[in-house]
Amino acid sequence: MDKHDIEEGAVFAPRFGADGLITCVTIAAGSGEILMLAHMNAQALQVSLETGVAHYWSRSRGQLWRKGDTSGQVQTIVEMRTDCDQDALLLMVKVGGDGHACHTGRHSCFYRKVGADGKSLEMLPEAAQHSHG
Amino acid sequence: MDKHDIEEGAVFAPRFGADGLITCVTIAAGSGEILMLAHMNAQALQVSLETGVAHYWSRSRGQLWRKGDTSGQVQTIVEMRTDCDQDALLLMVKVGGDGHACHTGRHSCFYRKVGADGKSLEMLPEAAQHSHG
Repeated sequence: MDKHDIEEGAVFAPRFGADGLITCVTIAAGSGEILMLAHMNAQALQVSLETGVAHYWSRSRGQLWRKGDTSGQVQTIVEMRTDCDQDALLLMVKVGGDGHACHTGRHSCFYRKVGADGKSLEMLPEAAQHSHG
Repeated sequence: MDKHDIEEGAVFAPRFGADGLITCVTIAAGSGEILMLAHMNAQALQVSLETGVAHYWSRSRGQLWRKGDTSGQVQTIVEMRTDCDQDALLLMVKVGGDGHACHTGRHSCFYRKVGADGKSLEMLPEAAQHSHG
């Protein structure tokens, strides 16, 4: 598949990295809030497409991971997009349970901003986590 | 730095992968539209923090890349966030020039959605690219 087909074509040909993984950005359908960044291997992508529920590959545990399996915060996929060179995925999801995507109990994993000094982190109030800067 | 400090602490300690890179999700400040996914090495991050303008590491070209250098679509960083385990960055930017982030001339790199068959891609109309599903 040449560059033009990859970028402009109608064939979904996800490009997994040397580690067999593709990066996924997961956002809340509707609000567009960025929830988390995770990875899929080919199996996780296939199962996600078949079931309509987000499955990832856990790099730390080295296993297929149905998000929300233990917490109840299952992510139902509303829409999946890919980017120009098809080496990234965008998942728009509805989150079950209490709606939190982060294992720390927060809505989003991106709950801290980098300070002006470039060295410190500032905890964002819950409301600010939902804003887009 | 232990897990609690990484997740709850006030010290920015970005975790680069074995390839020396950290993944960045870049969104439009204000609208929250997902523009692109890219990578930074330590130098790209440092220069981005020092200049307030997004610099990435081009994996294809193997070089530091000041986004918009040739196109004029420079990305001014409004806010930078990191995630729970500090292995991903979120950049909220204002895009210069014609406001396009994708090298194909589109506003966002995520201009196609995966079809219901899981094998085809559908081009999204420009307006739909800005919606969050």
